[in-house]
Amino acid sequence: MGTPSGPAYQLYYWPSIQGRGEFVRLALEDAGVPYDDVTRRPASDGGGVQALQALLRGDRPGVRPLAPPVLIAGDLVLAQTGAILAWLGPRIGLASSDSSAAAVTSQLVLTVMDLVAEAHDTHHPIAASLHYEDQKEEARRRAHHFSTQRMPKFLAYFEDVLARGKTGWLVGDQATVADLALFQVVSGLAYAAPVAFRALSPRIPLTLALRDRVAARPRLAAYLASPRRLQFNQNGVFRHYPELDEVP
Amino acid sequence: MGTPSGPAYQLYYWPSIQGRGEFVRLALEDAGVPYDDVTRRPASDGGGVQALQALLRGDRPGVRPLAPPVLIAGDLVLAQTGAILAWLGPRIGLASSDSSAAAVTSQLVLTVMDLVAEAHDTHHPIAASLHYEDQKEEARRRAHHFSTQRMPKFLAYFEDVLARGKTGWLVGDQATVADLALFQVVSGLAYAAPVAFRALSPRIPLTLALRDRVAARPRLAAYLASPRRLQFNQNGVFRHYPELDEVP
Repeated sequence: MGTPSGPAYQLYYWPSIQGRGEFVRLALEDAGVPYDDVTRRPASDGGGVQALQALLRGDRPGVRPLAPPVLIAGDLVLAQTGAILAWLGPRIGLASSDSSAAAVTSQLVLTVMDLVAEAHDTHHPIAASLHYEDQKEEARRRAHHFSTQRMPKFLAYFEDVLARGKTGWLVGDQATVADLALFQVVSGLAYAAPVAFRALSPRIPLTLALRDRVAARPRLAAYLASPRRLQFNQNGVFRHYPELDEVP
Repeated sequence: MGTPSGPAYQLYYWPSIQGRGEFVRLALEDAGVPYDDVTRRPASDGGGVQALQALLRGDRPGVRPLAPPVLIAGDLVLAQTGAILAWLGPRIGLASSDSSAAAVTSQLVLTVMDLVAEAHDTHHPIAASLHYEDQKEEARRRAHHFSTQRMPKFLAYFEDVLARGKTGWLVGDQATVADLALFQVVSGLAYAAPVAFRALSPRIPLTLALRDRVAARPRLAAYLASPRRLQFNQNGVFRHYPELDEVP
């Protein structure tokens, strides 16, 4: 924070997609915490994908991360979106300091991340290492079950949590990392599967209200309008293939 | 713990498979913590799958769980294996009380759970709601990539963490929930894919030593030899289909 060593937090993620890194970025942006988005800086300035690759090779002491996102805070090198948000949330005012409430927040984040993984696998049901074009038939079959069963099930679940909680937030009466995560997955699904999402929208009014409330938070609104927010694209977790998008 | 209200922990999971519930059960058993394995009791005694179904319908206050395992401790109703183990680990001596070390432990648990999800999807690449027989072709294709790419990648990663750590445990110098989780996934893979596992075994001596060290812990050894330990079977996460098992 203005010290010679730079911001207290360094985020490492693939520089050209939102992906899972966006869940961490949203938390840092909403909290107004300065952070170094390392790979978005040029390679000549220590950034680029090379910086991430060095981290994944294990150039730091401690447990090597298998995959990004990775958050570095002092000596801590931490991967796995769910673990990062569980550690970060209470420290930046985006989860309760009560350990039970924080655990339930983490539970909901992990449930969002399960939905993210299933959304990804609609276009890569066989292998992430293969192109979509090499698994299109399987993708169509998996996407059918996703649109008609899984996406409705997950969204109905979050809607029910909001209905039972009655505060407008998933846990307690303030925004947490779980709410930001729900905003992000809902935004991603609306991009990837607009037909399915539009059909399901009447069933999830509380979720849509939460999405809008999150997007209107001043620091997040500024972030979302800035060039720091990458756009959804066809290389990310959420991809729009019209042939995979059907009415539930 | 002998009080009229019974043990401090209640575990809810499908009663006839190890599944993800086993990761929680191993932690409770290793710690020697009394717990009520609710659904394993007869329905006439408040157990059975009905008890879990009531929980999933939301018969308790607080955030309703979407899926088991669910751990109840007092007022806390907590789902998601990774969230449960992150909450439980430090309380039962199976994760550090230092928050950074505990976060890294949680990261490794979540990485194990990613491997578990991928192992599951080898036999259900299209939809969990369909029978294996209805997705056999896709399963064979996905399993090929799992055996030749993903399983070697994950196992090499854990082996590397052990090699760099030099303590025989994944984090620090004592067993944590991450070590128990690695034991469980390695046991599951050896059951599900014995050909692939045998071929990979020479590359993962530290992982196999950890597996044996975990299995020899007195309380776990007693548990594993007891009828409380369900056997792997063809309804669980890890299933042995010879046609899906190939040399990497």
